[in-house]
Amino acid sequence: MSGPDAVRPGQSPTGPEALLTLRDFEAEARARLDPVYYDYVAGGARDEVTVRANEAAFQRISLLPRVLRGREKREADVTLFGQHASMPILISPTAFHRLAHPAGELATARAAARADTVMIVSMASTTDVRDIAAAARDAVPGRDPALWFQLYIQPDLEDTAALIRRAATAGCRALVVTVDSPVLGVHERNKRNGFTDLPAGMYCENLRNLRGDEPGSVRQIAMSPALSWEHVDWLRAHTQLPILLKGVLHPEDAHIALDHGVDGLMLSNHGGRQLDTAPATIDLLPEMADAVGGAVPLVLDGGVRRGTDVVKALALGAAAVGVGRPIFWGLAAHGEQGVTRVLEILRDEFDHALALCGAGTPADLTPDLVWSGSAVAQRFAPGRAGT
Amino acid sequence: MSGPDAVRPGQSPTGPEALLTLRDFEAEARARLDPVYYDYVAGGARDEVTVRANEAAFQRISLLPRVLRGREKREADVTLFGQHASMPILISPTAFHRLAHPAGELATARAAARADTVMIVSMASTTDVRDIAAAARDAVPGRDPALWFQLYIQPDLEDTAALIRRAATAGCRALVVTVDSPVLGVHERNKRNGFTDLPAGMYCENLRNLRGDEPGSVRQIAMSPALSWEHVDWLRAHTQLPILLKGVLHPEDAHIALDHGVDGLMLSNHGGRQLDTAPATIDLLPEMADAVGGAVPLVLDGGVRRGTDVVKALALGAAAVGVGRPIFWGLAAHGEQGVTRVLEILRDEFDHALALCGAGTPADLTPDLVWSGSAVAQRFAPGRAGT
Amino acid sequence: MSGPDAVRPGQSPTGPEALLTLRDFEAEARARLDPVYYDYVAGGARDEVTVRANEAAFQRISLLPRVLRGREKREADVTLFGQHASMPILISPTAFHRLAHPAGELATARAAARADTVMIVSMASTTDVRDIAAAARDAVPGRDPALWFQLYIQPDLEDTAALIRRAATAGCRALVVTVDSPVLGVHERNKRNGFTDLPAGMYCENLRNLRGDEPGSVRQIAMSPALSWEHVDWLRAHTQLPILLKGVLHPEDAHIALDHGVDGLMLSNHGGRQLDTAPATIDLLPEMADAVGGAVPLVLDGGVRRGTDVVKALALGAAAVGVGRPIFWGLAAHGEQGVTRVLEILRDEFDHALALCGAGTPADLTPDLVWSGSAVAQRFAPGRAGT
Amino acid sequence: MSGPDAVRPGQSPTGPEALLTLRDFEAEARARLDPVYYDYVAGGARDEVTVRANEAAFQRISLLPRVLRGREKREADVTLFGQHASMPILISPTAFHRLAHPAGELATARAAARADTVMIVSMASTTDVRDIAAAARDAVPGRDPALWFQLYIQPDLEDTAALIRRAATAGCRALVVTVDSPVLGVHERNKRNGFTDLPAGMYCENLRNLRGDEPGSVRQIAMSPALSWEHVDWLRAHTQLPILLKGVLHPEDAHIALDHGVDGLMLSNHGGRQLDTAPATIDLLPEMADAVGGAVPLVLDGGVRRGTDVVKALALGAAAVGVGRPIFWGLAAHGEQGVTRVLEILRDEFDHALALCGAGTPADLTPDLVWSGSAVAQRFAPGRAGT
Repeated sequence: MSGPDAVRPGQSPTGPEALLTLRDFEAEARARLDPVYYDYVAGGARDEVTVRANEAAFQRISLLPRVLRGREKREADVTLFGQHASMPILISPTAFHRLAHPAGELATARAAARADTVMIVSMASTTDVRDIAAAARDAVPGRDPALWFQLYIQPDLEDTAALIRRAATAGCRALVVTVDSPVLGVHERNKRNGFTDLPAGMYCENLRNLRGDEPGSVRQIAMSPALSWEHVDWLRAHTQLPILLKGVLHPEDAHIALDHGVDGLMLSNHGGRQLDTAPATIDLLPEMADAVGGAVPLVLDGGVRRGTDVVKALALGAAAVGVGRPIFWGLAAHGEQGVTRVLEILRDEFDHALALCGAGTPADLTPDLVWSGSAVAQRFAPGRAGT
Repeated sequence: MSGPDAVRPGQSPTGPEALLTLRDFEAEARARLDPVYYDYVAGGARDEVTVRANEAAFQRISLLPRVLRGREKREADVTLFGQHASMPILISPTAFHRLAHPAGELATARAAARADTVMIVSMASTTDVRDIAAAARDAVPGRDPALWFQLYIQPDLEDTAALIRRAATAGCRALVVTVDSPVLGVHERNKRNGFTDLPAGMYCENLRNLRGDEPGSVRQIAMSPALSWEHVDWLRAHTQLPILLKGVLHPEDAHIALDHGVDGLMLSNHGGRQLDTAPATIDLLPEMADAVGGAVPLVLDGGVRRGTDVVKALALGAAAVGVGRPIFWGLAAHGEQGVTRVLEILRDEFDHALALCGAGTPADLTPDLVWSGSAVAQRFAPGRAGT
Repeated sequence: MSGPDAVRPGQSPTGPEALLTLRDFEAEARARLDPVYYDYVAGGARDEVTVRANEAAFQRISLLPRVLRGREKREADVTLFGQHASMPILISPTAFHRLAHPAGELATARAAARADTVMIVSMASTTDVRDIAAAARDAVPGRDPALWFQLYIQPDLEDTAALIRRAATAGCRALVVTVDSPVLGVHERNKRNGFTDLPAGMYCENLRNLRGDEPGSVRQIAMSPALSWEHVDWLRAHTQLPILLKGVLHPEDAHIALDHGVDGLMLSNHGGRQLDTAPATIDLLPEMADAVGGAVPLVLDGGVRRGTDVVKALALGAAAVGVGRPIFWGLAAHGEQGVTRVLEILRDEFDHALALCGAGTPADLTPDLVWSGSAVAQRFAPGRAGT
Repeated sequence: MSGPDAVRPGQSPTGPEALLTLRDFEAEARARLDPVYYDYVAGGARDEVTVRANEAAFQRISLLPRVLRGREKREADVTLFGQHASMPILISPTAFHRLAHPAGELATARAAARADTVMIVSMASTTDVRDIAAAARDAVPGRDPALWFQLYIQPDLEDTAALIRRAATAGCRALVVTVDSPVLGVHERNKRNGFTDLPAGMYCENLRNLRGDEPGSVRQIAMSPALSWEHVDWLRAHTQLPILLKGVLHPEDAHIALDHGVDGLMLSNHGGRQLDTAPATIDLLPEMADAVGGAVPLVLDGGVRRGTDVVKALALGAAAVGVGRPIFWGLAAHGEQGVTRVLEILRDEFDHALALCGAGTPADLTPDLVWSGSAVAQRFAPGRAGT
């Protein structure tokens, strides 16, 4: 050790390399974006209690590292539903990437492909999933891109079938079915900003020319509280793709999901954008892991901003995590390069946290690494928070 | 989904439609009201610990929504003491509506009638309950208005009897008997503001011309620590109207109340206006629901500002909630239209929260929807609040 | 009720009547006092964690009032060690009253006598206890003043004996023996302010002309870590006066104290002026009450600023409370009138809190009035403090 | 007691005597240091959650003092691994003292020697350990300096052996082997400040001329995740010096360490400089003390800033504590005199806290002095932190 931490010489102060953390990207995106779009992404439902809870919960949780484990190298690779990813950090589905950058989802897809991780394409993408898949394929020739498709089941199942066909044809290899949106969450920031429509020329391209519509027309995404487990059964019967349900928060629903044959659960509160005052996902993870009992993988999103957050989620039972807003900040700050840098930061931080925890692979992350604040410790720290 | 949340086109930026939340109404009311009157309503007893606790407690409680329940439509209607209300959100009794708006309680009553919900008329209203009832009747011809009457039992029972007769004649269909006011709460804001008397021309009209007083004279409301359960027995014997006790906070008193044959309890700390440092009502609700054991309905007020607050109260055992200050803010901001808008916001938010929780009716709101922070989850989040 | 809370007409905005709460007196005192003296009184040991904890703890504790108890009048009188006081609110011993007002302890004593409550005279008073007693006697002719004497046992027991004789002769009727001061607490505010000596002409008058000193000379108060339970035994054998130990915080020491025949305990952390990070006294009270098991009365001080604080302390097992700094603020603001007003505010607030809790006497204040946050309630409010 | 706390007359307002607390030294150091160096020392890993937690945890823990123990004098001396120290407060290893003051580690060593306490020399010192030892020896002729040597085991064991020889030859009497640094912690403050290299002329002198290097050349300290318990076994076999492992946080690792024959553990999270969101060490101490079961001594560092912090650590099972940053602040403020003053403040505060706790020696500090917030007390203080 010749001195303190190194930074790369010659790096530009405004380039992506100068942004050191995901929060730096958030600040940069805020500076660059139309405030209305910034608010659209940063905000959440109602009082945004859950938005804040997601991040705060990770900071409250403590890690107990192991030492002297003799693990010279770390391997972050994971296999999820038969597919390889170079790290257990996925891109959660978020809508409207073209609000962040003209290249939109194409840039995201290229960055994800180059990072060799999963991009969950939002059904509400402003680029057709087939174009997204092509961009990903071009970015890394010879490697099938790891794309999953986020789906809102449409009440008209024929429409849903058409969407699935489109996604499958494009090469998506899993369906992430959002089930926490019987109605759209209410974001008061948008209402105050008068943000009611996408800018001219921007559309939910996955709903264009759907099932014999008039050429060029774009459907609206329908949300329906009439959806039920029968729709999951229909889906299960309709596709060979692995099905993850996204937005199951109640342990009883986790049991039901298993009964209906889903392949995985995405433990998500929709980034605090649907039901405000839903718990932080990381706080819920232990009981959801208990409920699932290892039967299927759990992917968690919501508030992941640091490599240690990934460690905590995996230690408590997640197979992988997703990040949403940070990807958008990356896009807004520096397009594809920004997304690449966001993923690189997370990869570096996760690798670093693995090393500091004495872990060599995600499988080494066991629940005992999360400090349980045992009875002994608790005994001597009665709540003095109010003083 | 063509884009983000919609707002209604053409809405005036200063009209009631531009106010999106109950907190917006609070801000608008603050801007419009004489600060002395604002303080009178916003403030509470002593250090206002309970005032703050009521709202804060709701934000601390988390909801675990259910998914895929196939409930296309929500029905918010409830029946309380044999009476229908279009939603489980009532108007709690608050005094002196003419401080907020010249139309005073008449405006409140019209809005409540049009919203098809219960207005609990304060005995300290600045309008005679008979005029209030007439306004409600005129607002929705052909439907009996759902008015209840809040009563401070007067030590002179003949006076009390006269008041009950007046309320019953007017058409009030339940008595909400405040029992937390053996003496008046002390509001230091009022003392500092020198707010000692109602403005000229404003009176507690329900106490005018009571029982052979000199014509035109207005009695003072008497509060008495001599009141006892015998007064409840007298009342029980004296009226056929359903009797709710308002202000019972001790579970032992809930048991006693049941022994004395009351029809319901209004779980209220008087909006933090009587005993400062009383608990938030929502924090008390689980043990009060346990104490009552379903024998009679519980109506909760105190800090309800969001549709999710209503969901939490109902999930934990309340049959309905009341709102007090928000109604006053509505009046102050836009008179009857303001109250209408406040009720509409709450109805929309409650409906929305029901949908997001997978519930179709209030009966679907079961305790398991409130996150219990199970032993598993708690194990991994020792108190880091102080850090 | 013709309108909101009354204030007395014609009251001067700067007179004691215009000060409504003990915190008002604190602010007034701060405005009037030399900042060095203000800091001396307001401050505490080291980081002042305990100073803040004392007040904060009361605000965290919730009260569950009883209703309809039919208690028309309240009687606040208590009997402590055979002596009557008109309320369970005593004057805790504090040093150097002449720093606050030229009349010093004489003013305090007159106010206490007129309020018919106990003044615990500090051994470090700037007035001779005999003069204090005379002032109290003159203030209310025909009633023996309720004076107790706070004692630091001097390592030279003959000195101690002389002090006790002086106090007993003056008419003090109990000894409050401070045991938390083996060394003097360190107040960094004083060090920063350069406050090292009393102003010219001000002395610890109780140590003047002690036991054959040169006439006019004043001893220093000695503090000694050599003091032990044997000194208590000596004291017990030496005086017929009731003995209270002040500053016992460890339950094991409470047991030892009982074994040594003390008559009472004053549960005090010296207002946060001795060991910083000692617990708030009200937080400790339940286990101290358990330890003592009713064998002797407990008097609590530390952070009492409101009538509800008194209710909480009595409900949890204290026989009475003491107030220290507020008396000093009263003196600094308005001399004797200020102390009178401080005591009157506390009396009114306590009476009011009794009424609101459905209590008629201190004996009605039972532990169940303090909300225990039962298992049921706790189940639904996992720590969201950090969000 | 003639008046309030004394300060020494004639002390300079800017000299070390005018700095009363460790936080004063922090402020003074901040004012004097290049902000880049200040940040280097004050900062920690990533979001610095652990940096803040270390200090905050001590403030949350309460002490229950004992009284009347008749302990006239305190003796703070301890014996650690057969060596005497005048107090249980050691100097934790910190790098690069010449960043703080030109005299660097020489000044620290002289101050430590004069204070008769242990200095743990950092392997990353900017002065050769042999020169440090000479300075310590010169400072107090005739007394062997109490120096321990902090070691990062180098992957090349011959290098490690050379380092140990150098340290042992210099007179170091224990090895403190840092095991929490398989990789270097990431300090984003340094990256933002561009602080990548030591200033010209400053080196890790302990790595100069190591094992036949070219004369004058200085090695880099190597950190390696390949280190394992076998390296500890090698070390155990290689040296007679007592071995402490520094950075063991997981109780299971404590058990393993005992199995490998270490002589002690230094319970440290590296001052929050390695794994961010590791728990505060004082919060972990009870369960680590349980895990070790008294088999070997525990030395705790992290957040010790007050004499009461030392008391808490010893009461909960530590044999001694270390201080790191405060020593650096002392150096930066006033060189050797500053370090002397920092140690003197801590000694005085610890002695004072012992006295106030009724303790005569470190051995009197038993776990019951730390308030356990017993079941009784907890019952009456449900979490109102959020209100």
